[in-house]
Amino acid sequence: MSAPAQPTACVIIIGNEILSGRTKDENLPYLAKRLGQLGIPVKEALVIPDVETRIIDAVNDARSRFTYVFTTGGIGPTHDDITAASVATAFGLNVEVHPEAKRILEHYYGETANPARMRMAMVPHGAELIANPVSAAPGFRLGNVHVLAGVPRIMQAMFEGLAHTLSGGDPVLSRAVSAEAREGDIAEALEAIQAEHPNVDIGSYPFGLGERIGVCIVGRSTNRADLDTAMDKVSRIFQALGLDPSESDPAATN
Amino acid sequence: MSAPAQPTACVIIIGNEILSGRTKDENLPYLAKRLGQLGIPVKEALVIPDVETRIIDAVNDARSRFTYVFTTGGIGPTHDDITAASVATAFGLNVEVHPEAKRILEHYYGETANPARMRMAMVPHGAELIANPVSAAPGFRLGNVHVLAGVPRIMQAMFEGLAHTLSGGDPVLSRAVSAEAREGDIAEALEAIQAEHPNVDIGSYPFGLGERIGVCIVGRSTNRADLDTAMDKVSRIFQALGLDPSESDPAATN
Repeated sequence: MSAPAQPTACVIIIGNEILSGRTKDENLPYLAKRLGQLGIPVKEALVIPDVETRIIDAVNDARSRFTYVFTTGGIGPTHDDITAASVATAFGLNVEVHPEAKRILEHYYGETANPARMRMAMVPHGAELIANPVSAAPGFRLGNVHVLAGVPRIMQAMFEGLAHTLSGGDPVLSRAVSAEAREGDIAEALEAIQAEHPNVDIGSYPFGLGERIGVCIVGRSTNRADLDTAMDKVSRIFQALGLDPSESDPAATN
Repeated sequence: MSAPAQPTACVIIIGNEILSGRTKDENLPYLAKRLGQLGIPVKEALVIPDVETRIIDAVNDARSRFTYVFTTGGIGPTHDDITAASVATAFGLNVEVHPEAKRILEHYYGETANPARMRMAMVPHGAELIANPVSAAPGFRLGNVHVLAGVPRIMQAMFEGLAHTLSGGDPVLSRAVSAEAREGDIAEALEAIQAEHPNVDIGSYPFGLGERIGVCIVGRSTNRADLDTAMDKVSRIFQALGLDPSESDPAATN
């Protein structure tokens, strides 16, 4: 539903802890919202283990199919942090000590700058550092692949530092209309609106919050006028059922 | 690190709302934990939009690479619910009215059983229904692919109803040891333990909770003795640094 020139993004979440259920990923929701605002909608996300061959395959597949790729996780000092070396291999490159990364880490760690920590100065040949204002150890960009930390606070700081380097398209606008209806009562009318507005993505999401049960219709488009026309029609579906729709999304995360 | 006969799982999360950041996925953490307990570790997860070609490709790729595939989302009554038809196409099949699903939906909806709702009785030819004790509309199993609802409460009820049909391997056991150390201080010793215990997956996860900053080491294995030997060594790393490790994971979700 995007204009042909709309850039796209893929997020690759690297980490056994997500696949075991130990950790709930918070990085995809953050990147999805921020990239959408920048006009770079996330079209796919992948969660893979800390396994070299899987990282190589996933990175090579994603960098050929999407404008931008963002990886999270696996760039710390321990044996399970294999993202940098795996991304290098994906590009047919070796990792090497980046002089600026070395300087940053030596300054940050001082006397505790042991070999494990200095391993975080190794990035693929030709990679550009991504600053880490929280805990020093940098991420890096190689081609269209951005390698970020897994800890959400660090990942977010890295992303905000690099966001200005991305070439976005038109921001993806959204509007939500909710009412205490059931999906099946409006499905037919909603399908007609979607057919009339192919450049608005219309999603239907039931919610049940305590006593309040209903459905939230979310429209997304890069065209404000089209979005408003379509969503005004959605409001009128609810009104025709005698309901009082609200311009809100009770089930959305912040 | 699994024994060769260990079955594997892939989770395919279908829904624009996850990729836009509107909704935080809760289904992967749930399935990952439960499948791990059943000895069917989740090895990969994918988040894809409500786009037929992407669903077809993802399902066909996953069903050939993993023992079990679970999809979530896209089986409701609205125009954006295209999972059933897309999975049918992935298998080269058509959807058709399943008599039992039709009966269930007619009973549940009574006079409000309109065409949009009855569309939820359409499943691929030969599919077996997965019961939905929450809101009637069933999921289905086709080959090794299990098609579940996206609403977490419904997804969980569907999964618990089908769990007994899965052939699990040895349960994946885990043990966590935490201390107020920094990853870089223990990385070298930890790598040595990982090398000595190749059938224990050892992950290192820093945490910062208020005043308390530290690292949690999580071991996972299907072998209790190996797991205990490895994790006892991890405790001793911390003790050698004068720290008091605890058998807990302060950063884990419930």
